[in-house]
Amino acid sequence: MEATTPESSGTATFQVTATGRGSARCGRLRTLHGEIETPIFMPVATAGTVKGLTPKQLRQEIGAQILLANAYHLALRPGAQIVRKLGGLHSFMGWDGPILTDSGGYQIFSLAPLRKVNDRGVDFRSHLDGSSLFLSPEDAVRVQVDLGVDILMVLDECVPGDAPRGDADRAARRTIDWAERSRRAEITPGQLMFGIVQGAAYSDLRQQQVRELVALDFPGYAVGGLSVGEDHETTMRLAEETAAALPADRPRYLMGVGRPEDLVRFVGMGFDMFDCVLPTRNARNGTLFTSTGPLNIRLARHAEDAGPADAACACYTCANFSRAYLRHLATSNEMLGGQLASLHNLHFYLRLMADMRAAIAADTFAEWSAERIAQLTQGVAND
Amino acid sequence: MEATTPESSGTATFQVTATGRGSARCGRLRTLHGEIETPIFMPVATAGTVKGLTPKQLRQEIGAQILLANAYHLALRPGAQIVRKLGGLHSFMGWDGPILTDSGGYQIFSLAPLRKVNDRGVDFRSHLDGSSLFLSPEDAVRVQVDLGVDILMVLDECVPGDAPRGDADRAARRTIDWAERSRRAEITPGQLMFGIVQGAAYSDLRQQQVRELVALDFPGYAVGGLSVGEDHETTMRLAEETAAALPADRPRYLMGVGRPEDLVRFVGMGFDMFDCVLPTRNARNGTLFTSTGPLNIRLARHAEDAGPADAACACYTCANFSRAYLRHLATSNEMLGGQLASLHNLHFYLRLMADMRAAIAADTFAEWSAERIAQLTQGVAND
Repeated sequence: MEATTPESSGTATFQVTATGRGSARCGRLRTLHGEIETPIFMPVATAGTVKGLTPKQLRQEIGAQILLANAYHLALRPGAQIVRKLGGLHSFMGWDGPILTDSGGYQIFSLAPLRKVNDRGVDFRSHLDGSSLFLSPEDAVRVQVDLGVDILMVLDECVPGDAPRGDADRAARRTIDWAERSRRAEITPGQLMFGIVQGAAYSDLRQQQVRELVALDFPGYAVGGLSVGEDHETTMRLAEETAAALPADRPRYLMGVGRPEDLVRFVGMGFDMFDCVLPTRNARNGTLFTSTGPLNIRLARHAEDAGPADAACACYTCANFSRAYLRHLATSNEMLGGQLASLHNLHFYLRLMADMRAAIAADTFAEWSAERIAQLTQGVAND
Repeated sequence: MEATTPESSGTATFQVTATGRGSARCGRLRTLHGEIETPIFMPVATAGTVKGLTPKQLRQEIGAQILLANAYHLALRPGAQIVRKLGGLHSFMGWDGPILTDSGGYQIFSLAPLRKVNDRGVDFRSHLDGSSLFLSPEDAVRVQVDLGVDILMVLDECVPGDAPRGDADRAARRTIDWAERSRRAEITPGQLMFGIVQGAAYSDLRQQQVRELVALDFPGYAVGGLSVGEDHETTMRLAEETAAALPADRPRYLMGVGRPEDLVRFVGMGFDMFDCVLPTRNARNGTLFTSTGPLNIRLARHAEDAGPADAACACYTCANFSRAYLRHLATSNEMLGGQLASLHNLHFYLRLMADMRAAIAADTFAEWSAERIAQLTQGVAND
């Protein structure tokens, strides 16, 4: 695995292919393992597996184009060096399409006990075995180079959505410092490194983060630290402001969100890439997303319902199984329940993204999105 | 669902297609949902799902011909009437091939607390919610008629392998009485009802059971109450004696066993049908069956092993994933670990049965089985 300094510009890797009256756009992002079409949703494969689904199902039943894995989790177990020896993460997990890894900043700040941040990096304890570890920005890059991923994220410092200004300032300054150091670190030719905008709930701080990150000329920009405790209105406002400030010729990735109707809104703001555990985590808890809102499949009212989870859905689950059967699996705690619901939910999310791309290309996104959001949020009556 | 009295003879539904120098034989069994080739292994779908696998995977990746479900479990949850209303078990679980259900006798005697057997049937409490229930032999038949399965089993009384003679006699007499009553119960035309030989570890009792059951002219005969506590040698002796006593023109089903090498031995005795939870249960615990014996995938020695679980296996799991990845999934308690191991183990079992059918057809079973058993049992060194 030959390493080199990053190319100065990512413009060539991303091409906006359609824009319309609003801020939503379609694009194409070239990676080492193929092109992806944006706006796109990345199924979450934290530990090198999308929970409950095979790569074959992801490709054939769901149409996944790119997966998201987590460098922190993989570095702790099985270890980046082992994955590297085994030919890299693609080979390890049997997925030949693009992979993006989060650096693990968010995980260290949410999972690891006794963490201590200083300018050099983060001292923390493994959430698995309590062992003492240290991660610098350069370490985070090296882990992702070892994993051999297509898109790697810089290490950032996350603060809660309601962090006081002083904390937010410190974390923001450190995030920029770490981004600079990461940008200078060696990566594999063709790998794309994305910077991450932090800034808690402070608009001016996020704007400043954008300016400083853009000066580092990353091939893509992520927005982190949203939907971490602040109210929904604040999330939407900060997301919109930040998207507007980011350069139009680079992909914009909003990390870790959200519900289907939120994705439609974020695409309307000009975001291109998303990941979220909701479709798979909620599936395992018995919630299926449908064209008319979420469905709690455990409820007794589904016990004799021969209809599919979503009559408008063409996925394997909806084509072959009734709500009654899915309820039976969920109430019996059968593995297949979570699997079939995960398959449906990811299919639902990816189909929603495809519908968005079509609406943007036809320049009907504004009308389409208003209608679709109304359908998706017609109420919990569905439950 | 029209009901009728059973046809007097099952001869037409089963055809022995190959025999050789020993007792092993190939056959073909016609059911309402298609023919199956024997000797055959039936993946276990207790609650209407093979744990961790979709019907599509069972068909395409594993080549399953027939599944086994459990009438007791399905009657308790979701209820046989509900399954019937939803079009029967095939439609409910999305499996269009043959299904055999066990009556639930074994489950009542192993799972249900406070059971009381009398000549009318069994009083017991649901292992799910403790509710008081009663099941007669006629009830057990009706549940399986409601489920719409292809092969239904009579209700039997199971006793432990080391039961005293008096208990074994009483249970045997009741099992025959119940078999007579079941045989008179109405079933759906084309459904096949199998009798079950009990008799604990008493050879003469089992021989008497065979005579009395055969007088009732079932289209197939099962042997129950083996591998329930008695020593392995006793199991093998009783199985062999019982198989030899059963009529050659009816399928012989040995219930609830066993390890791969045991299946080879039982086929050598003339058994045709098998079911067992081992391939799926052990898979979820990290044991993969291989051509050279079982493999504990959790062991540290597999951590950097890029090879497949079984180099001689062509299943999806072995074609795409390393021992290192399977170990990672198992030690991380990822769902996909159990799924991929279950897929492999069932593929392994069904491939073993197909190999046996080929060896029998070529009249090389004796030599083939000696060699294969030696390979399969070459020791735990493999672990």
